Amino acid sequence: MTPSLNHAYAVIMAGGRGERFWPLSTAARPKQFLTLFGGKALLTQAVDRLSGLIPPERILIITSRDLVPATREAAWNLPVENIVGEPMGRDTAAACALACALVTQRDPQGVVCILTADQLMADEATFRQILADSVEVAMTRDAIVTIGIQPTYPATGFGYIEAAEQLQTGTVTRFQRARRFVEKPNAEVAAHYLAGRCHYWNAGMFIWRVAVMRQAIQQHAPHLLDLCVRAEATPSAGLDALLDAIYPALPKISVDFAIMEHVKDIVVARGSFGWDDVGTWAAVGNHIAADAAQNVVVGTCEAVDATNNVVISEGRLTALLGVKNVVVVHAGEVTMVCDRDRVQDLKKLVQQVGKRPDGAKYV
Amino acid sequence: MTPSLNHAYAVIMAGGRGERFWPLSTAARPKQFLTLFGGKALLTQAVDRLSGLIPPERILIITSRDLVPATREAAWNLPVENIVGEPMGRDTAAACALACALVTQRDPQGVVCILTADQLMADEATFRQILADSVEVAMTRDAIVTIGIQPTYPATGFGYIEAAEQLQTGTVTRFQRARRFVEKPNAEVAAHYLAGRCHYWNAGMFIWRVAVMRQAIQQHAPHLLDLCVRAEATPSAGLDALLDAIYPALPKISVDFAIMEHVKDIVVARGSFGWDDVGTWAAVGNHIAADAAQNVVVGTCEAVDATNNVVISEGRLTALLGVKNVVVVHAGEVTMVCDRDRVQDLKKLVQQVGKRPDGAKYV
Repeated sequence: MTPSLNHAYAVIMAGGRGERFWPLSTAARPKQFLTLFGGKALLTQAVDRLSGLIPPERILIITSRDLVPATREAAWNLPVENIVGEPMGRDTAAACALACALVTQRDPQGVVCILTADQLMADEATFRQILADSVEVAMTRDAIVTIGIQPTYPATGFGYIEAAEQLQTGTVTRFQRARRFVEKPNAEVAAHYLAGRCHYWNAGMFIWRVAVMRQAIQQHAPHLLDLCVRAEATPSAGLDALLDAIYPALPKISVDFAIMEHVKDIVVARGSFGWDDVGTWAAVGNHIAADAAQNVVVGTCEAVDATNNVVISEGRLTALLGVKNVVVVHAGEVTMVCDRDRVQDLKKLVQQVGKRPDGAKYV
Repeated sequence: MTPSLNHAYAVIMAGGRGERFWPLSTAARPKQFLTLFGGKALLTQAVDRLSGLIPPERILIITSRDLVPATREAAWNLPVENIVGEPMGRDTAAACALACALVTQRDPQGVVCILTADQLMADEATFRQILADSVEVAMTRDAIVTIGIQPTYPATGFGYIEAAEQLQTGTVTRFQRARRFVEKPNAEVAAHYLAGRCHYWNAGMFIWRVAVMRQAIQQHAPHLLDLCVRAEATPSAGLDALLDAIYPALPKISVDFAIMEHVKDIVVARGSFGWDDVGTWAAVGNHIAADAAQNVVVGTCEAVDATNNVVISEGRLTALLGVKNVVVVHAGEVTMVCDRDRVQDLKKLVQQVGKRPDGAKYV
């Protein structure tokens, strides 16, 4: 292990509202707790895949206050004080400022790896290698390193990072200077990006020294400086009260918009390790093998003349006749039936259900 | 009330396997117990609609042995000995022979109204009037009276009765001689029948004196004579044992095929009283009003961009997104999702589910 890794901290961002995998995920049990993929919660996988690279005492999780108990359960091997609950969601810029403070408090030489809680990475060894290399680069430069995912299709659901010239970083050739962050493109632009091979998906993973973070916050998001300074000076036991005092007044703003789009020296590490954000029910088919009739089934299902469906049916029997291209998901007292091509609109349905007089018990 | 009604007995045929309304109906709870339509079990409605015409002590039900307890519950106002359970299904000819015996035992002058347990009749007063008139005709002629339903669409799912000349029956003009019983037609023939106005749906309702029944059995279904004779001589307490001894050897044959197709003197009463056999989930929409999005909903449902669906969701929330023309039904541990145009194939699905190692708990 390179010496720089002794200063490496992972801060896993684990918020989320659970709309895209409703009804299996809900506000009280968002996507990072799903065990559909690989039998372990995505959050547990996010922690476990750091094994051998970053020890549990240097892994932190920022989640929402009400999810702290469930998060402790999913990340049972972390020290309890490493799981911090925000009193309300204020998007990723605030969470990064908090991460900066929490790590600075532990190690002023710390390198913060901002990671996500609800994504899959098929080739974890390669991910770890890239993360280790990124920490090394972040230690030796005043740069923010971001892991850009090599696009495999013309996605319109992600922001992109446009890469510029290759960096000279010894034997490792995967680093390029980032020219700019770009918003989610339309289909035409996305196809152009894919063909051009100069654009990477922004997967929300950033590796930066706390000093670099602090500098970037000071320069581009000074409204977060107070949070940085005071959280750093507050012991674990007083943190909730501090956040209660500061958070309500913070604006909701993403770290991409608040910081990344303004910082000059960003380095992108080309990532190709079977990354998937499993963004919708339709994407489940990429990770769970379909049966002979092209139905993706978790749980118990019988089908007659039914093809290309996704069925999540644990504890119930789902019986299909003649239907095509539908998603059927049972959870608690809810059954969701959705056209597979409409999964991206699930949020609308969740909102409508939430407006019922008894909506709270369903979403 | 005409004097002939003092001899009128209703014998309601209440077998059924529950496949067409699976999973809400099952072998243990077939269609006649569904309370979807009008809030009362169809069987209870079948009994109740005789009110004022035939008293409970002259209403009998023939069902399968295992359904006797549920039948007693649904027909709570009938004497318990009026509910008879067959040890196994031997189709309607055997049940009619049994009906003949049960009524003969009670009244050798009896007129047996063979009725069904799982159909709807919107205009019950007209039905009662037609039944009363039919009893009158059956008393005064050596004929079998059958109530033919005036077709409202070119149905291919029913057998038909072809009507001949008008009968002279005083002031009542709805009786015609039946020329013949015909099997379920194809679509072309059905359209021809509808246009010709000489064909009526065979709804399985027959009104005949026990002497006429006995004669018909003797002549056309002599294999049932033994059942007739011995059941007539057996008191209620011994009936189960007798049927256990006789039934296994009986062939499965319908009364239409065994008797009606061979009998010369059949009279058809033209029936038009909003009869519906509610044959499939798709037909539910004829009896339960659709909402603004053309979804027929019983229970709890939220829908976004979903139209023309049938949702039976009691005790669960069904949430639909973007789906069209599907039927979703929850019952116990089962959810059935079916294309609305494929409901007639539900039997295939039920059979497949039944073949599972744990199939018995679902069908």
